[in-house]
Amino acid sequence: MDKQADYAYMQQALELVRRATIETSPNPKVGCVIVREGQVLGQGWTQPVGQAHAEVQALRDAATKGHDVRGATAYVTLEPCSHFGRTPPCANGLRDAGIARVVAAMQDANPQVAGRGLGILQEAGVEVECGAFPDLALQARELNIGFFQRMETGMPWVRMKVAGSLDGITALSNGQSQWITGPAARQDGHLWRARADAILTGIGTVLSDDPMLNVRGVDTPRQPQKIIVDSQLRISAQAKVLQGGALIVCAVADAGKQLELEHAGAEVICLSDENQQVDLPALMQELGRRQINELHVEAGATLNGALIRQNCINELLMYLAPKLLGSGAGLFNLPELNHVDEARALQFHEVSRVGDDLRILARFK
Amino acid sequence: MDKQADYAYMQQALELVRRATIETSPNPKVGCVIVREGQVLGQGWTQPVGQAHAEVQALRDAATKGHDVRGATAYVTLEPCSHFGRTPPCANGLRDAGIARVVAAMQDANPQVAGRGLGILQEAGVEVECGAFPDLALQARELNIGFFQRMETGMPWVRMKVAGSLDGITALSNGQSQWITGPAARQDGHLWRARADAILTGIGTVLSDDPMLNVRGVDTPRQPQKIIVDSQLRISAQAKVLQGGALIVCAVADAGKQLELEHAGAEVICLSDENQQVDLPALMQELGRRQINELHVEAGATLNGALIRQNCINELLMYLAPKLLGSGAGLFNLPELNHVDEARALQFHEVSRVGDDLRILARFK
Repeated sequence: MDKQADYAYMQQALELVRRATIETSPNPKVGCVIVREGQVLGQGWTQPVGQAHAEVQALRDAATKGHDVRGATAYVTLEPCSHFGRTPPCANGLRDAGIARVVAAMQDANPQVAGRGLGILQEAGVEVECGAFPDLALQARELNIGFFQRMETGMPWVRMKVAGSLDGITALSNGQSQWITGPAARQDGHLWRARADAILTGIGTVLSDDPMLNVRGVDTPRQPQKIIVDSQLRISAQAKVLQGGALIVCAVADAGKQLELEHAGAEVICLSDENQQVDLPALMQELGRRQINELHVEAGATLNGALIRQNCINELLMYLAPKLLGSGAGLFNLPELNHVDEARALQFHEVSRVGDDLRILARFK
Repeated sequence: MDKQADYAYMQQALELVRRATIETSPNPKVGCVIVREGQVLGQGWTQPVGQAHAEVQALRDAATKGHDVRGATAYVTLEPCSHFGRTPPCANGLRDAGIARVVAAMQDANPQVAGRGLGILQEAGVEVECGAFPDLALQARELNIGFFQRMETGMPWVRMKVAGSLDGITALSNGQSQWITGPAARQDGHLWRARADAILTGIGTVLSDDPMLNVRGVDTPRQPQKIIVDSQLRISAQAKVLQGGALIVCAVADAGKQLELEHAGAEVICLSDENQQVDLPALMQELGRRQINELHVEAGATLNGALIRQNCINELLMYLAPKLLGSGAGLFNLPELNHVDEARALQFHEVSRVGDDLRILARFK
């Protein structure tokens, strides 16, 4: 086959992925292009959860245009699914439509699929290629990083957003922190909130800022879930964050307070560690069970530090303003080290300018 | 004339500038291309101080190749000089060689030149164009930023190098700071030392680290001068930094200690402010008088903070390692603010990756 053409059509399929919205979650976003003899017959991308997957969309698109797809090649950014979930398996759909060849950017990590989708196709005599282009496979993975993280670890991909000055100060000693970064960085922060399935903060932030913790100023088809870590259930039933519902995670049960909060629309769960604090790794497992693919953390230095110490964070999303604040609160409350080599190590993933500020994505190793 | 050709030849002249070494200092680095009817007749760049300027080099290059430059155009990245300094004026040289047209990227900021070089040429009937390409003029300026700063303000361009973790920590509480950044960043730091005319540090760093404060691991035709801010003359005559000579700046005279340090090869000057500290702005003026174009600062948080507070710094050169150190010493000792708006403002000039680390150049507004 023509490797160069395969690569180009897979790129086209990856472009389609970007049209899918966050409403596909907890499903991965996939793109599909159906091609025969240099002609694109149909294309599609994953629809909101419960609706059509990319392959079905592409088959429909071809049918709408009056194209017969028999003998055609389907390019998909992820192995077609093999299981009856909310929709029938896409592998069956492609097979039944008479597709002759399927090129997939990568295997599905979902243990319910994991090669079975490609197996169904091969058994039916469909020619199958998978993972031939490592750079495109990496892109496909990045576009669904939360989904893959959850499939592989049972926990969400956890991104911690922080903002501070060039000298690492996030708030003055008098508590003032508005506005260290500029409007472009703040709006960019809301775009990252919007792509997450849930936003997590701590009781300290709720008590001091009374935040809404929602997506504002950017278009979004749905608001992320809200999660508050509140070991001693100190939250007020009138807290703004409870509007529209929230999950409150405590470490010390208090039936009366729980009932009050549930009346205010919240769900309360108790996950205690041996120190009567919220068991953060257990919380991540619970959020994985709840099909949270990407979790966005915006908290204060205390919870930030605890999450980092307990290896619950995959990625830092850091906005640095071109300012020197001199002294005040740091970004993370972490213990003193005796040696530089003990430092938590990351690697820079992406660095870019947002307005006058710098945006750094760094991943924990 | 052909604007596009002018632009291309000026770019070529700018490329030549990069071949000049730091030894041109305190003179600016200049490039010159001599062209007639699409043929490059000669080219040159500034030689070490006291030797030929770019224009003379280009004329010699043309002569060596047997070209007659009469009627040709000379492209120069800076207005040709008009004064008898260490060498005769280049404006006269171009005129006497019969050059018909001179295109300069920008005017010289040296008050001894400042338009006079172009004036000499115009009076002689040479066609003159200056500053037609703002982007190239900016490049020419950046290549000589220290020279322009000194001509315009009487003080050097002062670049402060700092290195720390992503959370703004430069050393652990136990003093350990080796090595937060990686080998590539440390070597890059020596390249920046090498391009400076002088390196400045404080007595705190000398007492705690006993540094050489020289350029190591990268090629350099000469070592920068060394300057130590030492208000109370606490430096030992055996300090390594004194090897090869150094300028010690104190605030409290001590004839005996001064004599001892002078015997060790140092020069000692006294510049006191009203607090019996070294008068840092006065020191910058003094360094300007000594023809220091670029000053490289590598000091601790105390001197760093004092220099920033007293507006002595033009640019931060900041290496950030992808690590979290949690707690320890910050980069700058600066006073607490009451409001975020009081913060010293910078703007990001250039951000790049150096090895595993991030290099940020940010300029004070």
